Amino acid sequence: MHVQLNPLGSMDLLSQLEVDHLKQNTQQEAFRLFRNCCLAVLNVGSHTDSSAEIYEQFSDFAVNLISRERGIKIELFNPPHSAFVDGKIIKGIHEHLFAVLRDILFYHSRLQSSKSWLDLNNSDHITHTVFDILRNARVIGASNEPNMIVCWGGHSINEVEYKYTKEVGYELGLRGMDICTGCGPGAMKGPMKGATIGHNKQRISSGRYLGLTEPSIIAAEPPNPIVNELVILPDIEKRLEAFVRVAHGIIIFPGGAGTAEELLYLLGIMLHEENQQQTLPIILTGPKQSEAYFGEIASFIENTLGSAALELIEIIIDDAPAVARKLKLAAAEVRHYRKSVGDAYHFNWTLQIEPDFQQPFIPNHQNMAALDLHLGQDSATLAANLRRAFSGIVAGNVKDEGIKAIRQHGPFQISGEPKLMQMMDTLLQAFVDQGRMKLPGSKYEPCYKVVR
Amino acid sequence: MHVQLNPLGSMDLLSQLEVDHLKQNTQQEAFRLFRNCCLAVLNVGSHTDSSAEIYEQFSDFAVNLISRERGIKIELFNPPHSAFVDGKIIKGIHEHLFAVLRDILFYHSRLQSSKSWLDLNNSDHITHTVFDILRNARVIGASNEPNMIVCWGGHSINEVEYKYTKEVGYELGLRGMDICTGCGPGAMKGPMKGATIGHNKQRISSGRYLGLTEPSIIAAEPPNPIVNELVILPDIEKRLEAFVRVAHGIIIFPGGAGTAEELLYLLGIMLHEENQQQTLPIILTGPKQSEAYFGEIASFIENTLGSAALELIEIIIDDAPAVARKLKLAAAEVRHYRKSVGDAYHFNWTLQIEPDFQQPFIPNHQNMAALDLHLGQDSATLAANLRRAFSGIVAGNVKDEGIKAIRQHGPFQISGEPKLMQMMDTLLQAFVDQGRMKLPGSKYEPCYKVVR
Amino acid sequence: MHVQLNPLGSMDLLSQLEVDHLKQNTQQEAFRLFRNCCLAVLNVGSHTDSSAEIYEQFSDFAVNLISRERGIKIELFNPPHSAFVDGKIIKGIHEHLFAVLRDILFYHSRLQSSKSWLDLNNSDHITHTVFDILRNARVIGASNEPNMIVCWGGHSINEVEYKYTKEVGYELGLRGMDICTGCGPGAMKGPMKGATIGHNKQRISSGRYLGLTEPSIIAAEPPNPIVNELVILPDIEKRLEAFVRVAHGIIIFPGGAGTAEELLYLLGIMLHEENQQQTLPIILTGPKQSEAYFGEIASFIENTLGSAALELIEIIIDDAPAVARKLKLAAAEVRHYRKSVGDAYHFNWTLQIEPDFQQPFIPNHQNMAALDLHLGQDSATLAANLRRAFSGIVAGNVKDEGIKAIRQHGPFQISGEPKLMQMMDTLLQAFVDQGRMKLPGSKYEPCYKVVR
Amino acid sequence: MHVQLNPLGSMDLLSQLEVDHLKQNTQQEAFRLFRNCCLAVLNVGSHTDSSAEIYEQFSDFAVNLISRERGIKIELFNPPHSAFVDGKIIKGIHEHLFAVLRDILFYHSRLQSSKSWLDLNNSDHITHTVFDILRNARVIGASNEPNMIVCWGGHSINEVEYKYTKEVGYELGLRGMDICTGCGPGAMKGPMKGATIGHNKQRISSGRYLGLTEPSIIAAEPPNPIVNELVILPDIEKRLEAFVRVAHGIIIFPGGAGTAEELLYLLGIMLHEENQQQTLPIILTGPKQSEAYFGEIASFIENTLGSAALELIEIIIDDAPAVARKLKLAAAEVRHYRKSVGDAYHFNWTLQIEPDFQQPFIPNHQNMAALDLHLGQDSATLAANLRRAFSGIVAGNVKDEGIKAIRQHGPFQISGEPKLMQMMDTLLQAFVDQGRMKLPGSKYEPCYKVVR
Repeated sequence: MHVQLNPLGSMDLLSQLEVDHLKQNTQQEAFRLFRNCCLAVLNVGSHTDSSAEIYEQFSDFAVNLISRERGIKIELFNPPHSAFVDGKIIKGIHEHLFAVLRDILFYHSRLQSSKSWLDLNNSDHITHTVFDILRNARVIGASNEPNMIVCWGGHSINEVEYKYTKEVGYELGLRGMDICTGCGPGAMKGPMKGATIGHNKQRISSGRYLGLTEPSIIAAEPPNPIVNELVILPDIEKRLEAFVRVAHGIIIFPGGAGTAEELLYLLGIMLHEENQQQTLPIILTGPKQSEAYFGEIASFIENTLGSAALELIEIIIDDAPAVARKLKLAAAEVRHYRKSVGDAYHFNWTLQIEPDFQQPFIPNHQNMAALDLHLGQDSATLAANLRRAFSGIVAGNVKDEGIKAIRQHGPFQISGEPKLMQMMDTLLQAFVDQGRMKLPGSKYEPCYKVVR
Repeated sequence: MHVQLNPLGSMDLLSQLEVDHLKQNTQQEAFRLFRNCCLAVLNVGSHTDSSAEIYEQFSDFAVNLISRERGIKIELFNPPHSAFVDGKIIKGIHEHLFAVLRDILFYHSRLQSSKSWLDLNNSDHITHTVFDILRNARVIGASNEPNMIVCWGGHSINEVEYKYTKEVGYELGLRGMDICTGCGPGAMKGPMKGATIGHNKQRISSGRYLGLTEPSIIAAEPPNPIVNELVILPDIEKRLEAFVRVAHGIIIFPGGAGTAEELLYLLGIMLHEENQQQTLPIILTGPKQSEAYFGEIASFIENTLGSAALELIEIIIDDAPAVARKLKLAAAEVRHYRKSVGDAYHFNWTLQIEPDFQQPFIPNHQNMAALDLHLGQDSATLAANLRRAFSGIVAGNVKDEGIKAIRQHGPFQISGEPKLMQMMDTLLQAFVDQGRMKLPGSKYEPCYKVVR
Repeated sequence: MHVQLNPLGSMDLLSQLEVDHLKQNTQQEAFRLFRNCCLAVLNVGSHTDSSAEIYEQFSDFAVNLISRERGIKIELFNPPHSAFVDGKIIKGIHEHLFAVLRDILFYHSRLQSSKSWLDLNNSDHITHTVFDILRNARVIGASNEPNMIVCWGGHSINEVEYKYTKEVGYELGLRGMDICTGCGPGAMKGPMKGATIGHNKQRISSGRYLGLTEPSIIAAEPPNPIVNELVILPDIEKRLEAFVRVAHGIIIFPGGAGTAEELLYLLGIMLHEENQQQTLPIILTGPKQSEAYFGEIASFIENTLGSAALELIEIIIDDAPAVARKLKLAAAEVRHYRKSVGDAYHFNWTLQIEPDFQQPFIPNHQNMAALDLHLGQDSATLAANLRRAFSGIVAGNVKDEGIKAIRQHGPFQISGEPKLMQMMDTLLQAFVDQGRMKLPGSKYEPCYKVVR
Repeated sequence: MHVQLNPLGSMDLLSQLEVDHLKQNTQQEAFRLFRNCCLAVLNVGSHTDSSAEIYEQFSDFAVNLISRERGIKIELFNPPHSAFVDGKIIKGIHEHLFAVLRDILFYHSRLQSSKSWLDLNNSDHITHTVFDILRNARVIGASNEPNMIVCWGGHSINEVEYKYTKEVGYELGLRGMDICTGCGPGAMKGPMKGATIGHNKQRISSGRYLGLTEPSIIAAEPPNPIVNELVILPDIEKRLEAFVRVAHGIIIFPGGAGTAEELLYLLGIMLHEENQQQTLPIILTGPKQSEAYFGEIASFIENTLGSAALELIEIIIDDAPAVARKLKLAAAEVRHYRKSVGDAYHFNWTLQIEPDFQQPFIPNHQNMAALDLHLGQDSATLAANLRRAFSGIVAGNVKDEGIKAIRQHGPFQISGEPKLMQMMDTLLQAFVDQGRMKLPGSKYEPCYKVVR
């Protein structure tokens, strides 16, 4: 099978020079990444979260770029059939493929050609880059009202939890809120599906289902085609920054290591003195059966980051309408706050994010072993370090590079102050026991070892 | 609780004279009907199909019309809470309430004032009325492409069947088809829900979910708010005519007496000599477990209406994509046929419908007993009579008037040629055994007795 | 030459019955009217205001209706070439032709079939009919803001005056106001042309150029294709009622007998006690050279209807921005007033119009001679009678029927109280001297004789 | 007077970094240019074509940039009153001001930051830059049909010629064609005004009136607010390249030195061997009285560039419909050609433009004196050199820099082969005699001297 696709979105107006640059990529490392992300996007019905497995299954899949005077085309060889309806590609997937081209290859070129002035060690330049990627993807608009709810949570959750995420999405949709998640199944798909029904009942045809992902996770958590705005940020740190700057409210559903990473990132930032005035509601919620889970999370936070961190969040159990109602009310406050300080609705410029949370962390064995994990340090710094630890575990669980590294060198060694290590071990073991680390159907082999 | 609602749709531009006429209705019989239909529309989350039960539950619900120079408002007292989100009515339900006003009271006035020239015994005038009601409801448009799939089937179906109707809807939505059903739960809701996801994935924001209902059934089968175009035809016969004239393809899912009524109506018409050239695909479909059910239906048709009738339908078991693909292909033929004969895409004017299928049948004990049911007659006439018999059973099962009549006088007596009676009895008993007559949770007491 | 045109606007969704009724018209009197109005609309570049002349010039023009299952088509034989561009009809003219079909034939049928209940002697029924015609033409919308400025004035004005009407239109357009006129050249075209430029500069792409006309004047004053909403009211009285009920402000430019008719109609209504609270700004305006003209008009009004009438109007000389600014400010007051009394923005229901101003006046020799013209009577009644006198003169000047009657029977005899007769004579003579009665190029032969 | 304006168009989504860069400009040379271009855009009603005069008249006008977290604002001090309606800026002018910010300051920054890889001596890079500027201004779209007609001609033309340009624009508008000109009065305004009426009559609400200008000419030829898409290219050469690459047809009306420059540029390119297959209709047209003018032009071309050049153009006298009809037909051929070679409709990538026509020519006394003007050379090179000569004369006539240089050093000396010099002198003298060099009201002092 073999198809050619016309450009969509911002990729439909390229200059000859830009097309030539894209073509030159064909020989390079970035192109392998591009090919893999295309495969992830095409392979949307899949039921595995192992990137490696997917890449093996479709080893004869290939992608090519065709240059025409009038622009660029994507050519697919042996794509997964599930992406097609009667031989025609599903429009949502078609759009996602060009989002991949835009963010992986085109934006890569732009970064290359900006090297002379853009300093990716500079905090302001990093924020500019995050904004520029989102703008280039046309997902921020000057006229947007503040109604974007970021939903975090596990890709592997049980049926009751999944149903609850749909209910929350439905209640948000009924109140005109839009949804942003990290793409993928579970808590990242449920709220979007629910919201489509809520939007339909309220006759909202412009509902937004924004997916923010990054190259190394996209295969494990591919965007459902309901995602009607897809952006692939270059790394997990820029993805997290994008989440918090576009959010007008954040919901955290039950999840595993990835969710813990997100929560620690968020608390680390919100604890910053300059962010005291920020209006950004954070709600942890789940069905009745998740009550104990959130208790554990709350204890971990209190014991590590202190009660100030605990005060930043609100836990609501089994009450989807209450969650949506709170966020709807809070959105009005967000609007008011942004207006009062002259900030934009579509991007939270005034939120202070320290370099500690912006610099990419490479989760290899050496870096994981070197993490400075002890309780005595400043709570924001501790949050940053804990965030890195969980980030590494996510990599070891589902990312291609991470899985390979674990296969080769065995589990990551995580060490630090014994008391802290015990807390982590307890929390991680709970994730394992509750099946939150990987999709069901496989026995979980931990990719880490907590060294006490 | 007490709310006032501003007019929507075609009700937002009324003259003072029209507003005055509407107000005058308040004292009349039509207004009770209006009040009950409003209640049905508001009570959408309900889990009963007994109209009587619903009316009793909300006996303190009241509705009022308020006249302003600038137009008419609807005022609600003690409406069901499920219709509201944080005290604000759901937009879809708001629209449905004004559809009820439009079709029950406003159109009623129009019929009253047309008495001097409109002859509702004249076949052409009936067809004009059906068209006029649909046009007044703004559900037909000159520029529509032929892609409206009418889905019939039971309101009480099992989980596997329901899931299958969603899959078919999803596959239709992926192919850009719109959905028309009779409103209500089961096979009338599934295809719409499925289609919303298919439309979303294909980025179709103009998807149509057309509900055609009638006053006596609406309480038992209230429109889900996903229905974004709602029309209440005056009686079952005009509703059936509306179905077949707006359809570009018809799917029949498993169902009970109502579904049998619809199928017999359709076959009776399509057997007409002048409709031989008509392009109108009819597909009976269900999951694997429904295979036997469709076998029974097919036997009944062959034994009563003959093999010519059987050739008009196609049975597809457990293959949702195949159903959608066939109808997508057939839509192109419909387009071609309509163009070749100069007919409209939005309304099938050339379809011949005999008065036998247009004249309202009142399902009381006398009329039911008087039905002429024997095999020797012309197959179209037999179809018309059988249709009436099943129509009566639906009334006895779920309609307010029917339920009351059965309570008072006992079951309808259906008699006729013994061989035919046996066939009917077998089919009806199968419906009962499979739980298709009423929603689960209640033991079914037959409202009919087949007298052999 | 011979073309067929597909239906547009509300004519694109007709039932077979309605198409049949339209076809039956072909043999009737109304069809001659339809044919003549079509010719008027097609003949837009013409430089004569004599209906008779136009009908003679295009005596071989014919029109036919073609019925298809899918609707109605208009067929033209030997239409004026100016309506076509490279063999294709100009879209604006195409729309106007179907507006003619809609208002002359279709609405005529509707009136016929409403005879049993609609009483055209009843004031409320007349207002309902005016509203119904406008609604059927889709020119009123519930969401319209109050910004419709009605511009009255002569079809035969000089170059300086014409340029001034364009300037006023331009200033109105810059302020987001829409324009409604009686169609035709001169003061009815200038404001629209000016407004298009103002709208363009303000990036308003939804500018409305509403033309209200009637069958007997349309040939003499055909709608320029800039008119993007055209309605043909059945007679001059309903046209005048439509003008004042859709207006949110009224401008009167220099003009002749027709303009005088409009002004007298308006003042007669506004003098009504129940209209004291109405907010409806009336501005008389023209270039410097028109100052004397407006002086004469003001004197005539003061001497006939009294100073109360004079206070209803404001005269602004040579200051287009001031005119537009006043009306823009007044529009906010109109909005406020309508809201406060619960009236619609799109139609002034609360304006009281007495039957004297609604009943059609047939301007034949007998009726003209019988007019009761003396100063002693109630000022509203006097306004109504004077209005009729000027209406008759317009008919004698440019309408087909009137011209023929004058040819046959000589000028109308207008008689009454000598003092009043002298005033009228003076005013009419001024119109003649200033060339306001007819387009330049012909010597004006008065169609009336004031008998003192 | 003092106003602040919110950002529009692509300037409404800037990052903090970009806003900071813009603010830094305030102290620089580019900011003076920005201020002058703002003044030009605001001063649209002006009746002089002397940039110097305008700058003197509004010497107290100042502009400032205000940075907010949510973006950038423009602040104006003492702006010309004609840009405002009741204290509110005209929307079209508001848009133009942000187009100035975008093209003068923002794009300037982008060029600065691209220095490391963008080589403005490289032909492909120049073309990329032209495309990038147009794309950044959002004036090219992948879905545009080929219907953009570029109209060239003098800013100082007589009333008969001006009226004719309006007629041509009207006929183009009636045929659905869009207009692109160089902004300013005369032949650059007429076609746009005419087209608005044609578009209105055809109910085209998306009509495009594209103005392409450059910083040194914009004050002398400010964009009328009808221009709804404005782009300021960095220099005359990129402006000319933008013209020919967006054009689907080119009209040349009577004009002076600037028009001659444009024609020579166009012919020089079209004579290139690789452009033989290009479909790009070129029509010279004017009213009856311009016949002699075009005769002179044709002679000059034939005698300098040869008969091959003459065959590239068609002269149509006094027949506006014929001009529009030809271009409409040709547009279909353009579409066909572009499709056949895989080129875009919105930008003519395959058109070959040699560096000789891309490199900026600085029209100072030294460069003007050094021009190589003799008949023996290759016709494309001669066209390039003649183009430069006329370009210098335009600068001396109306551009700020040029006027100052002439004041200081006296007229440019143009020398070369005597035969060629005589031809030039004759042509230039004709322009002077016909008043085409400067707007009426001033005596023209030649800024050049042809040295034979």
